[in-house]
Amino acid sequence: MSKSVGKSEIRVDAYEKAAGRAKYVEDLCGRNTLVARILHSTVAHGIVKSVDTSEAEKVPGVLKILTCFDAPQDRPFPTAGHPWSTDPKHQDVADRCLLNRHVRYYGDDVAVVIAEDEVAAAQGVRALRAEYEALPFVLDVQEAMADGAPQLHQGYDHNILAHTSIRNGDYQKAIAEPGLIRVEGWYDTPTVQHCHIENFGCYAYEEAGRVVVVSSTQIPHITKRVVAQALGLPWGKVRVVKPYVGGGFGNKQDALYEPLCAWCSVEMGGRPVKLICSREETFVSNRVRHAIRSHIVSWVRPDGTYAARKLECFSNQGGYASHGHGICAKGMGAFPQLYPCPNVECDAYTVYTNRPVAGAMRGYGIPQAMFAVECHTDDVCRAIGADPVEFRRKNLMPVGFVDGFSKNELYADTFNQCMDKGMAAMDYVRKYKAYQHQTGDVRRGVGLAVFWYNTAVWPISMESSSCRMVLNQDGSLQFQTGETEIGQGCDTAYSQMVADAVGVPFADVHVITRQDTDITPYGTGAYASRQTYIGGFSIMQTAQALRERILNIAHEQTRMPVSNLDLQDGQIVRKTDGRVLKSLGELATESLYSMEHSQHITAETTAQIKSNAYSFGCSFAEVEVDIPMCKVKLLNMVNVHDCGRLINPALAEAQVHGGMSMAIGYGLSEEEKFDPKTGRVLNDNLLDYKLSTMMDHPRLDAEFVENYEPTNPFGTKSLGEPPTCSGAPAIRNAIFQATGVAVDRCPATPHVLFEAFREAGLIQG
Amino acid sequence: MSKSVGKSEIRVDAYEKAAGRAKYVEDLCGRNTLVARILHSTVAHGIVKSVDTSEAEKVPGVLKILTCFDAPQDRPFPTAGHPWSTDPKHQDVADRCLLNRHVRYYGDDVAVVIAEDEVAAAQGVRALRAEYEALPFVLDVQEAMADGAPQLHQGYDHNILAHTSIRNGDYQKAIAEPGLIRVEGWYDTPTVQHCHIENFGCYAYEEAGRVVVVSSTQIPHITKRVVAQALGLPWGKVRVVKPYVGGGFGNKQDALYEPLCAWCSVEMGGRPVKLICSREETFVSNRVRHAIRSHIVSWVRPDGTYAARKLECFSNQGGYASHGHGICAKGMGAFPQLYPCPNVECDAYTVYTNRPVAGAMRGYGIPQAMFAVECHTDDVCRAIGADPVEFRRKNLMPVGFVDGFSKNELYADTFNQCMDKGMAAMDYVRKYKAYQHQTGDVRRGVGLAVFWYNTAVWPISMESSSCRMVLNQDGSLQFQTGETEIGQGCDTAYSQMVADAVGVPFADVHVITRQDTDITPYGTGAYASRQTYIGGFSIMQTAQALRERILNIAHEQTRMPVSNLDLQDGQIVRKTDGRVLKSLGELATESLYSMEHSQHITAETTAQIKSNAYSFGCSFAEVEVDIPMCKVKLLNMVNVHDCGRLINPALAEAQVHGGMSMAIGYGLSEEEKFDPKTGRVLNDNLLDYKLSTMMDHPRLDAEFVENYEPTNPFGTKSLGEPPTCSGAPAIRNAIFQATGVAVDRCPATPHVLFEAFREAGLIQG
Repeated sequence: MSKSVGKSEIRVDAYEKAAGRAKYVEDLCGRNTLVARILHSTVAHGIVKSVDTSEAEKVPGVLKILTCFDAPQDRPFPTAGHPWSTDPKHQDVADRCLLNRHVRYYGDDVAVVIAEDEVAAAQGVRALRAEYEALPFVLDVQEAMADGAPQLHQGYDHNILAHTSIRNGDYQKAIAEPGLIRVEGWYDTPTVQHCHIENFGCYAYEEAGRVVVVSSTQIPHITKRVVAQALGLPWGKVRVVKPYVGGGFGNKQDALYEPLCAWCSVEMGGRPVKLICSREETFVSNRVRHAIRSHIVSWVRPDGTYAARKLECFSNQGGYASHGHGICAKGMGAFPQLYPCPNVECDAYTVYTNRPVAGAMRGYGIPQAMFAVECHTDDVCRAIGADPVEFRRKNLMPVGFVDGFSKNELYADTFNQCMDKGMAAMDYVRKYKAYQHQTGDVRRGVGLAVFWYNTAVWPISMESSSCRMVLNQDGSLQFQTGETEIGQGCDTAYSQMVADAVGVPFADVHVITRQDTDITPYGTGAYASRQTYIGGFSIMQTAQALRERILNIAHEQTRMPVSNLDLQDGQIVRKTDGRVLKSLGELATESLYSMEHSQHITAETTAQIKSNAYSFGCSFAEVEVDIPMCKVKLLNMVNVHDCGRLINPALAEAQVHGGMSMAIGYGLSEEEKFDPKTGRVLNDNLLDYKLSTMMDHPRLDAEFVENYEPTNPFGTKSLGEPPTCSGAPAIRNAIFQATGVAVDRCPATPHVLFEAFREAGLIQG
Repeated sequence: MSKSVGKSEIRVDAYEKAAGRAKYVEDLCGRNTLVARILHSTVAHGIVKSVDTSEAEKVPGVLKILTCFDAPQDRPFPTAGHPWSTDPKHQDVADRCLLNRHVRYYGDDVAVVIAEDEVAAAQGVRALRAEYEALPFVLDVQEAMADGAPQLHQGYDHNILAHTSIRNGDYQKAIAEPGLIRVEGWYDTPTVQHCHIENFGCYAYEEAGRVVVVSSTQIPHITKRVVAQALGLPWGKVRVVKPYVGGGFGNKQDALYEPLCAWCSVEMGGRPVKLICSREETFVSNRVRHAIRSHIVSWVRPDGTYAARKLECFSNQGGYASHGHGICAKGMGAFPQLYPCPNVECDAYTVYTNRPVAGAMRGYGIPQAMFAVECHTDDVCRAIGADPVEFRRKNLMPVGFVDGFSKNELYADTFNQCMDKGMAAMDYVRKYKAYQHQTGDVRRGVGLAVFWYNTAVWPISMESSSCRMVLNQDGSLQFQTGETEIGQGCDTAYSQMVADAVGVPFADVHVITRQDTDITPYGTGAYASRQTYIGGFSIMQTAQALRERILNIAHEQTRMPVSNLDLQDGQIVRKTDGRVLKSLGELATESLYSMEHSQHITAETTAQIKSNAYSFGCSFAEVEVDIPMCKVKLLNMVNVHDCGRLINPALAEAQVHGGMSMAIGYGLSEEEKFDPKTGRVLNDNLLDYKLSTMMDHPRLDAEFVENYEPTNPFGTKSLGEPPTCSGAPAIRNAIFQATGVAVDRCPATPHVLFEAFREAGLIQG
């Protein structure tokens, strides 16, 4: 069947994007769209006593000011981009209001100015005078859990949003085994931001008594529901449209300011209002990745096997729940699966603090978990004198492993395959040997880290995807799905899958990139690396429905039995002699304009997916560490991925390159820094926040192992998030080899290395 | 079932339109859209020798000039808004090019200037210098048929685009019957224009290698095909979008300048280009209604029955084929059906002339035919001394009449019902008697005329309609169809039909007013008064498919058998005890988010319609004629319609009011006038063209007879065009009663009346 799948087809949106024709939110909103800008809190924790709007009202062009005293406080809503659950216990925490009287982080939303233009809106915000009753605040996750810490939300004891645990075997009994070596570590990951190219923005207006929001979102159908919840409307009264999106990486897997923008429009009588975040707002008042602190204790036998293990992780949620505990829980869930051990105790805590709100970010807990687990793995190797590769080969999840909850199975010897490929690409064995026992100021090291990542959200949440195909008179077709192109290239992958599944040339598939919840088949959107995996099910199912219709019509038109007909490459073919009976275009034209039996050939189905799949892979990093300068230079990096069959190798490689870049930043430079006196983010811009760029990269080597994923119709599985998961611990382990110093936090900035090297006695200070 | 159908629900677009929020073509095109303006021919017939572009090229902002020497002349395309036929003999005449070297009317398209803005485009056009070799031209339809007349198109002998005839019985033998009274008349109708509020306009651009045209069109799906034909593209490479449209009345049932605009964009590398017609261009270079000259000879027995009849009609096509012969053929077809007579000879000729191109206009040949036939009916009554009402009662199509071709049947005694109702409303009997035998300068008269109009185009062309319904989580739903709202209110009627057919409240139906050929189910569009009739089939069929899905899911969710479940007013009801088991919203939410069986509930079907229906009605007019001033004052007007069941009485009344206004203009004031020396339209603007307005109307009385139409799922049939059909002859017949003068041409302007009255000896001149 396969003709297009597996080929590096050029992106379907390549020309539009290269030519600057692709339209994003700001390109689409009309000239007369009003501008909303937000007054953000200047205390990290407090109560708004008053907002003086008198000066702002005098600003020419300011039309309306809405403050937290106008916004309903009795209709809290959730923001996480999760499918709705009809089980109230499984619904996301609804702790958000449109504007807040109780502000919970420096940058919280206090008031909004609606004006005729940007300048008036900005002047209006500057002219507002908010008075706060400042409350004590807390930025550290464990301090927030301490007795006497300031409490952010009612009903959450010690600020703990959630605590879950795993108990396998008998940890206490197991650690009594004689001869065990105890290895303990604390591992810290930072608050980072997604830094997608297009800042979040949206605009809203009313049409025919309904609210329309055009948004740069990953999740139009979910956002429709959240906006309705926030505004207290029946869900059918809201329509969300998603045009081209310039990246999201999980930040736009939340309803961000769509509810507030929609409310502004409603308050303006339905006039169009836009709310476009600045980069500064994106850093502070959108979402960030959870900083997670992990504590691991491993009890290892001298033969290099685990007797018992313990994990505690503390996830810094920031001021509001957003995706909440899901992220830390997912990271914890990886622990007993990646290196199975009979006796395990895990505890995950997600804790409110007065930091910016943490939500989804590429990797969804796994980058944090892999940093902790894979740093610790090398710590264990060091403690027992094991080789890091051999130790992993011995302890990693074995072929045939089945997770009891997700039913995910490891079908192939993928870890060894990935590590072998990565070692070859890195020339690891030679280098590892060469870099042992170095002295001198400048030393080199190689390190590796593995990861495990699952695909989509079943069975935690509902997984389904719908799509629709509409045939043209020339045999080409349009394809619509609720799953969303946000820059990652899924529209191209989908077009390839549709082409092959239906039996038409790739060029004859016209993907509708824009989602419009009024007419786009339901799909939950871009997250959990689900697009290609989940979309594949509904594409295959809908293609089969379309083919069935087409072949039945071909039977009507040719008198050949359906069983002897096939649709191949846009041609109706008689199977027995391979003769082309007519083109699909001829069939479609005849069908549509038939005086006997006119049919517009379309198909639409919902596929429910009750499976999930492990994706696997590893990173190898080679570094040169200048010890006196406390500087790390990344010399080489290799990622190896088993994401099943590659739909489009060039796009897959690009996806991995992007993820590696993000992992490099995570390992070496990126971190939001907080003023301990105010709680304010100090580096809320791309000058001070050291985003990893092309200039910081060595050549990025993306390799693949293609083990066909049997649960998926196209043999594929997640690749969107995996590339970010193992890079940072691989870099850390390379530094560890080079210097012998275990840097147990990322990013490994010169400041961090200075402290670590001084403590290790490598430098004086 | 009916809850909403039959109610005067407020238009679904009322608020958008009243508030000025509804977006039309010009509102939608972006700021940077280039402007195209056309150089129109200044000879009525000729060959373009050259177009000097040198001065125009110097105009700042002019980007490109395309002339008839750039436009392909070997790829002629049709423009009529008819469904495509796979039978070449049934396809529309393809005689149009993007720009023409052989120009065929004063206003033909010679060149186009593409510029950065309106001013530059207009200056560019003014700076073009075209040289013509002028040819003799002909404006009159019968002169064009004469030997030696200038020939417009090759292959059409004597300029006759088509000639069809009807031969029933034996006319020659029948007229030999002794004692017959011969009545003969020539009846002339004028070239008029639709004068919709929104001039035609469109813009085009390229996206992902395809051409997109956003157009003020009645027929987006057909326009997609025509643009592809004109540009030589596979049909799937073109996408047409129709936003709100400010009226069309048939002018926009042609592909007008969409092909030219699309070509301009392609020539500009896919940049957006708009082409918005001025009112002047709308009058001359869009479409007009065919001026038809009819010649009728009736042979009547003294008892008031017809022995034999003959009709010849000559339809003035103008320079290009457009809808061509269909219009005159339809008018001719009415002749033997309205007043059945055993011996009939009819001949219809459609003839190219050097007038502006005639196309579809509200009534599609029937206003012309009814003017001829119903003026003639009163002429016959006068000749034999019969009462106009009683004569019609005796001779009109009887109950049970079946047309052999269309299989249309007259199911009810509708003509008598309509006339009775109209007579009562007009107080006709009393007035008719009172106005007999008047003398004096100012006289009054009453007149009537009936009409017959069929619904949709079966069996001449394919009739089908598709629609799609998409259920929201709250039980409301979106409804999409290819049939088009162009101001007439069909979106509202559809919403009512959908509400009742599905079983939800009217407010829970959200109609998608915008058609987008990429995703909108196929429908041919707004013409032939087909929207409500044809749309009703696909609405009912799709609603039943949706209900079936819903009730099957209700069965899954409630364990009640489908046979005991109903959906009423948005509630799932157990039939046996009438208990509400759950709301449709609860069902939809549970279904969509089900962990067991997730389904996005949608339905889409194509209904093919192999029926048609007669609509009937009549007009009564009362006039006061000032003979010395040659002025007619319309005192009263009543229209009575049997269009089956009324979906929305208020909208139906509005539809009739609009049609009556058009008929009044047709009867009294509207006419395009031509300079006999140049062929130029002299009154191409709303100052000189005397469009009938509110100021010219008496109170318009719209009455209805509701005979349920058995062929339609909602019992409805055409009402869009019928109101224009019988007004003009009713006015003429009222003038006839008042003055005794048979004014056998419309409009009855003072100039026409002056000639007629002078000829009749009523005035001296």
